[in-house]
Amino acid sequence: MQIPVRIVLVETSHPGNIGAAARAMKTMGLSDLALVRPQAFPSEEATARASGAADLLERASVHETLTDAIADCGFVVGTSARARAVEWPTVEPRECAARVLDAIDAENRAAIVFGPEHSGLTNEALARCAVHVQIPTHPEFSSLNLGMAVQVLCYELRLAALERGRRAPEPDGESARAAPGFAHARPRLATAAELESFHDHLERVLVESGFLREDHPRQLKLKLRRIFQRAALDRNEVDILRGVLTSLDPSRLGPERSRS
Amino acid sequence: MQIPVRIVLVETSHPGNIGAAARAMKTMGLSDLALVRPQAFPSEEATARASGAADLLERASVHETLTDAIADCGFVVGTSARARAVEWPTVEPRECAARVLDAIDAENRAAIVFGPEHSGLTNEALARCAVHVQIPTHPEFSSLNLGMAVQVLCYELRLAALERGRRAPEPDGESARAAPGFAHARPRLATAAELESFHDHLERVLVESGFLREDHPRQLKLKLRRIFQRAALDRNEVDILRGVLTSLDPSRLGPERSRS
Repeated sequence: MQIPVRIVLVETSHPGNIGAAARAMKTMGLSDLALVRPQAFPSEEATARASGAADLLERASVHETLTDAIADCGFVVGTSARARAVEWPTVEPRECAARVLDAIDAENRAAIVFGPEHSGLTNEALARCAVHVQIPTHPEFSSLNLGMAVQVLCYELRLAALERGRRAPEPDGESARAAPGFAHARPRLATAAELESFHDHLERVLVESGFLREDHPRQLKLKLRRIFQRAALDRNEVDILRGVLTSLDPSRLGPERSRS
Repeated sequence: MQIPVRIVLVETSHPGNIGAAARAMKTMGLSDLALVRPQAFPSEEATARASGAADLLERASVHETLTDAIADCGFVVGTSARARAVEWPTVEPRECAARVLDAIDAENRAAIVFGPEHSGLTNEALARCAVHVQIPTHPEFSSLNLGMAVQVLCYELRLAALERGRRAPEPDGESARAAPGFAHARPRLATAAELESFHDHLERVLVESGFLREDHPRQLKLKLRRIFQRAALDRNEVDILRGVLTSLDPSRLGPERSRS
């Protein structure tokens, strides 16, 4: 069984960790690796650490921005090592795996995003995610290696996929299905790119209305974003919300009404 | 919460993997590392890969034999990547963690044993274990790195320990208890050293009796061993069985009765 979930590594410093991540993915039946501004790639060290998983490195996509790497994904999970200023729905790896498998089907893709080794994902990157996942490390030593974190999450994905396979066995067995666990049709989730357009639209309208000020809007924007990211909007819902925004946009009413 | 389970690495080739294992253990609250004939130790590479977990390497015990490394343990788990000639009780990591936590308390120690990178544990080493654990890798690429395997098993131990902590919270919280999850007293399990003495005794008596022949006794001995390993004998039971053996030993009856 292949699990169609993208692993996104953002600004990885050590190429060995990219190789270790590829190997970890392949042992658990994942193959879609995306790299955002890797410090060194391709690299001999990555290939050596990938061992028999060098094919994943060859097929890996490389991106300039996280936005680009997750553009076609409907469900994006961010890995987080610590509590953040703005609270976000946070799950453990087991629940994360269940949520991801719930989200994917022929129409909907999912990604799990890992930050740089030393600093983790920025708040801005985490704000692109529907949920955050936190591996429950020991509070006195939470320095989990990047490759190890990829291994743990891919392991949980495989366990969850195998468990679903046991509950609803496929006639062709292990290798048969691309997206495990789906019985009924679901609406297509909005992709990350569609959500970004929506958030841009929302921000434009709210700056226009005076609700967001250009001097200190950061925390407020983040809280707004959380609401919609957490909702895991489908495409139709995004269309509706954009219709709402368009209808409310002060700039449509002419200069005399805006910033009232 | 510290989890008092020993991780035993047998004949590790790459010192980097020893360091990675130490780091993996420490992130999950384990600290008892034992090495059997490591190819290179201590080693700068191990220390570098251990990152903040070099203290585990400093305190690691080094042994000439597996028997020595697990001598004081009552419950020993062997990691296995593939099916073996002789069947053994085999569990997945989640059940393994539950079994290990069930086994440990102030009187009983447990160990999880990992073999060399390329070959895994020998059948002889696996025969020292009460259960085998297999991480459910993808059948087409099961080449899990040693450090990753340690990470996955320690992660499952920590989840299981946290779960037990939630069900029966301790007044002092996270850091309070050494052996998680025990409510009632249990008999002390026989240590691996006591079991070895028992198996030696059993073999001696059965060779004496003619049941085991010195030319081809291997498979048969293994099957016998499995029975008693799987039973997870306590010390009193071992004493009883040794009493049985002594009582049946043909050599006690004089030379005219033995090998009859």
